[in-house]
Amino acid sequence: MKASKAPRKRNALYAQSGGVTAVINASAAGVIETCRAHSNRIGKLYAGRHGIVGVLTEDLIDTSRESIKAIRALHHTPAGAFGSARYKLKSIEQDRLKYERLIEVFRAHDIGYFFYNGGNDSMDTALKISKIGAELHYPIACIGVPKTVDNDLPITDCCPGFGSVAKYIAVSTREAALDVASMARTSTKVFILEVMGRHAGWIAAASGLSQQKSGDAPHIILFPEIPFEQKSFLARVKDCVARHGFCVIVVSEGVKTKDGTFLAEAGTRDAFGHAQLGGAAPEIARLVKEGLGYKYHWAVADYLQRAARHVASKTDVEQAYAVGKAAVEFALKGHNAVLPVIVRKSDKPYRWGIAAAPLEAVANVEKKLPRHFVTRDGFGITAAARRYLAPLIAGEDYPPFKDGLPDYVVLKNIAVKRKLKSNFKV
Amino acid sequence: MKASKAPRKRNALYAQSGGVTAVINASAAGVIETCRAHSNRIGKLYAGRHGIVGVLTEDLIDTSRESIKAIRALHHTPAGAFGSARYKLKSIEQDRLKYERLIEVFRAHDIGYFFYNGGNDSMDTALKISKIGAELHYPIACIGVPKTVDNDLPITDCCPGFGSVAKYIAVSTREAALDVASMARTSTKVFILEVMGRHAGWIAAASGLSQQKSGDAPHIILFPEIPFEQKSFLARVKDCVARHGFCVIVVSEGVKTKDGTFLAEAGTRDAFGHAQLGGAAPEIARLVKEGLGYKYHWAVADYLQRAARHVASKTDVEQAYAVGKAAVEFALKGHNAVLPVIVRKSDKPYRWGIAAAPLEAVANVEKKLPRHFVTRDGFGITAAARRYLAPLIAGEDYPPFKDGLPDYVVLKNIAVKRKLKSNFKV
Repeated sequence: MKASKAPRKRNALYAQSGGVTAVINASAAGVIETCRAHSNRIGKLYAGRHGIVGVLTEDLIDTSRESIKAIRALHHTPAGAFGSARYKLKSIEQDRLKYERLIEVFRAHDIGYFFYNGGNDSMDTALKISKIGAELHYPIACIGVPKTVDNDLPITDCCPGFGSVAKYIAVSTREAALDVASMARTSTKVFILEVMGRHAGWIAAASGLSQQKSGDAPHIILFPEIPFEQKSFLARVKDCVARHGFCVIVVSEGVKTKDGTFLAEAGTRDAFGHAQLGGAAPEIARLVKEGLGYKYHWAVADYLQRAARHVASKTDVEQAYAVGKAAVEFALKGHNAVLPVIVRKSDKPYRWGIAAAPLEAVANVEKKLPRHFVTRDGFGITAAARRYLAPLIAGEDYPPFKDGLPDYVVLKNIAVKRKLKSNFKV
Repeated sequence: MKASKAPRKRNALYAQSGGVTAVINASAAGVIETCRAHSNRIGKLYAGRHGIVGVLTEDLIDTSRESIKAIRALHHTPAGAFGSARYKLKSIEQDRLKYERLIEVFRAHDIGYFFYNGGNDSMDTALKISKIGAELHYPIACIGVPKTVDNDLPITDCCPGFGSVAKYIAVSTREAALDVASMARTSTKVFILEVMGRHAGWIAAASGLSQQKSGDAPHIILFPEIPFEQKSFLARVKDCVARHGFCVIVVSEGVKTKDGTFLAEAGTRDAFGHAQLGGAAPEIARLVKEGLGYKYHWAVADYLQRAARHVASKTDVEQAYAVGKAAVEFALKGHNAVLPVIVRKSDKPYRWGIAAAPLEAVANVEKKLPRHFVTRDGFGITAAARRYLAPLIAGEDYPPFKDGLPDYVVLKNIAVKRKLKSNFKV
């Protein structure tokens, strides 16, 4: 005889959102494996093809069609295995039709649990979905799964995805610095690496971890939080070359001058006179060349940095999996409108745990690099920043390699049969 | 009683030249450890500080002051541990004073063996030094040690340094392609990665190894050997986005239009109207944006690719060490004006050996990508190219990590006491 009090078994839905990371699929694995472990409570786990867009268009993926082995391989596969989306829903008032459509799709597929893996915007969306569910009397547990290379979510000590990009940038800075040091006598004297972080300097700060002693590269870090001032910057470059023979500069893509102009937008025009978004690194290179005449090289890591699963942080992979797992556990415990956050218990030895935080507290809030993490001169990181950052890049977790290359999984991503007659254009 | 026929023990000199690689220090380790193993024949091994510049200025490093452990660590440390130089000597006629100075320094330090680790130019210099030595009746064995990420030396099947940059680019292309595929539905549709290779397309070709099946990224490779034609290129991008939803492009820094203009030099002007060397990737991005309107992202790997010891090819590391070791063995066998080259014995299983080749055959000769390695349409690599390239990226050889970062060695580089009174300005 069935215990009548047992909660009814319902389906679940998982969606990836925003810019992907080296470890967002580890979170997906955490969600999927934990749902599978609770098959008494959760029926099918679906995924939105390209995130919320797939939900709106009822283009769902049946994750139960993927083998245990394929889901295991998500642990070591970068980017979004189900596709992500940059698609921000506005307020319930402005986008009411879309929110109602989401509930319509949920209802058609008996979705009782929604796991939304993203950043600030996505936490806001998840919160609104929980509200519209209540308003329309559709019972749904909306749980966020934190993710962003930018590390700019509040409450959580760090964001899954950040530790791996931080490690990639610190490793690359150390390697490129050895290269420039080799060449500086007769050739390149200034090397510039542009890193991500449109609004917050967390990734740029991570490059500072490559220093082992005073005078080591990077010699100058340019943060979006610190207004760029050409004169003091060039003076610092000159001093650095005089002192060390070369200068390694890490520049955040989001660096701005005092008047709010992005460096990346400054100066250059194409052959037709159109303003050219040339990147912060080439613009810094131009200033160095014109101001000081040094030979330079510059690199822009772009997607390479956030997709670099081959040199992911083991800590980051573990945390990404843990937040996926915890999201499902929170849902099963009856939580709603929360997300798992990482709580730091100690720096050294590094110990951390998971707690639940309300989506409300995280939605649309941006955590910038605190001023005391930046040296007084604005060009480096402090001991406090090091203490915070160091454990996040700790440990290696290499993917398996085959024929000299990482053996990443591509899922079958088999579609769930549509139940609704209506189409929805996004 | 000493055997009077044993050759007199003499000192040796090692110098690094040109752009450094992830494995040039593995060659250095091969030279140093093999010299140490033959201490009955070779006295001290010195190194030029910043290559030939250190030799000319009598700024030599005593490698015997480095511990066994430090030299071992060169196996896994990228870039030039003694400093490299971009410093080309002209003909003996034009630069006679410099060549004579080299012999003067050799004589002062009783250098009987000179190991020069570089590319085409350096092999030419080594050859000329052997000639001036003979002319001035100074007995010296000049042995080249091949090195170049560009893979453009003739005779040798491949060049140490290339396999690791090839692996880095293939890995990065595969990773970034997964990222773009995730984002393409609502955001980035075109991703462009600029790679090194000013004159030869070997590195660009290596990106093709990331393909596992037809339709995989990179969808378009732009080689310096194939003149860039905007119309057919844009048509291919458009077709690719229609077919796959996104397009991954790998562009060599050396791509030129039919009239010989580098793409990297095309189009852009700075605020003052000066032509801007903006990089090939941003220029391709501009063409895509203006011609097709797609959202794009671009990356320029620059030094990151050739310094990336963290994801070096095991095959490459082994070959780099082997050519260093063989150089010393050749010298001890009485060879002069030769370099060790890599001989391929079979593709699959990959088997290779080392042979001696005359410097004369390698000096100043550039090996381009053969046309039959490029598909007829000019945008991809053939099966023949794959057969050639695949073994070169095989195997991983991770450096040790400490605190989340590769534990690279920085040598003490203690100077040898000067013996000459004359200074030499370079």
